Amino acid sequence: MDKNSITDGQVALIAKMVMEAMQQKQDTGKGYEVPVGVSARHVHLTQEHVELLFGEGYHLTKKKELMGGQFASNEMVTIVGLKLRAIENVRILGPVRKASQVEISATDAIKLGVKAPIRESGNIEGSAPIALVGPKGALYLSKGCIVARRHIHMSPKDAMAAGLLDGDEVSVKADNERGTVFDHVQIRVHESFTLEMHIDTDEANAAKIATGDSVRILKG
Amino acid sequence: MDKNSITDGQVALIAKMVMEAMQQKQDTGKGYEVPVGVSARHVHLTQEHVELLFGEGYHLTKKKELMGGQFASNEMVTIVGLKLRAIENVRILGPVRKASQVEISATDAIKLGVKAPIRESGNIEGSAPIALVGPKGALYLSKGCIVARRHIHMSPKDAMAAGLLDGDEVSVKADNERGTVFDHVQIRVHESFTLEMHIDTDEANAAKIATGDSVRILKG
Repeated sequence: MDKNSITDGQVALIAKMVMEAMQQKQDTGKGYEVPVGVSARHVHLTQEHVELLFGEGYHLTKKKELMGGQFASNEMVTIVGLKLRAIENVRILGPVRKASQVEISATDAIKLGVKAPIRESGNIEGSAPIALVGPKGALYLSKGCIVARRHIHMSPKDAMAAGLLDGDEVSVKADNERGTVFDHVQIRVHESFTLEMHIDTDEANAAKIATGDSVRILKG
Repeated sequence: MDKNSITDGQVALIAKMVMEAMQQKQDTGKGYEVPVGVSARHVHLTQEHVELLFGEGYHLTKKKELMGGQFASNEMVTIVGLKLRAIENVRILGPVRKASQVEISATDAIKLGVKAPIRESGNIEGSAPIALVGPKGALYLSKGCIVARRHIHMSPKDAMAAGLLDGDEVSVKADNERGTVFDHVQIRVHESFTLEMHIDTDEANAAKIATGDSVRILKG
């Protein structure tokens, strides 16, 4: 049978059926569900910088366990941008790292007057300068102030279930009163990771979601 | 010709072609473009409340013309939530209205400790209480504090071009580094309206867009 024997009317009918089927799939297809963790502004420090801000021999003290072996410390600093505007009492997360880093929201960046780029944690080359003030000292970082890039932490098992690989980019839907889709969400896979999407306070508030809410992964 | 004369292989081929065509349409289909206007926190007041806060016989003075006959006034107030936390220097928009209203971001609501609902401007029944302090007086509003609902202002001509009606709901895409789709965006059509999507500072910062940027309307 030759394909020219299909009439235009039949093609239109089949096309309509396919479109309806695709629409239905889109409407009812529930993507992989991911709990949300909202990251408030916070600071990571090297041990050297902990001692500079809190005194020689000082070690961060644990206030609350977080995922992946991290903890919220009892210690806080005041951060100051180049225009001398400040945000007080910014929490330090432990344990200490190889490089100090300040993670703020875009709203904070405007308040502080700093041009913080959107970056993956740890990627601080060319990021914004910022000053930190602690009870025993002050520190000027010539780089290290970033707005964290949206990402999802997954164990290898979660990644397999979701059909995703480390480094993939997906879109994620928060289906609620505000209703928001976040594009360019990076997938990070590691044995130590608990399934969670990390967003900042701007993103959480714009989408009306909070820690403990869930979102769904749309196709990447 | 009977439709049963189409083979399964042909159906699959046609389906594939249709899907490719739809995919292409989705990829290249540019939705109706809308400039963005970001609304910072602001206050609308009745004339009675202007006089209560700024003195008897006082009238708001114009600092800058805004769209739709509104203006940013030179006058500002400090707003205080129930937990006595304050945000200073919140701009008043004129002209005076029939009811006083305070529009804040969800980030502000958390800072102030007020439970402000997401509402269309003017719909303040059951909204949050808030206090306002001016140079000549203070005012406690038992209702009137809201987070503004996302919306797009359109003239009837714009609405016709976009194929939309007053009250429609659409999704809107900001296609940039962060990449965000805002659902449940209300269409408001009026002769006095200039084409603009109004979002708050949380939404702007979460999506990395600013006044003057443009977004595109996806299908509703």
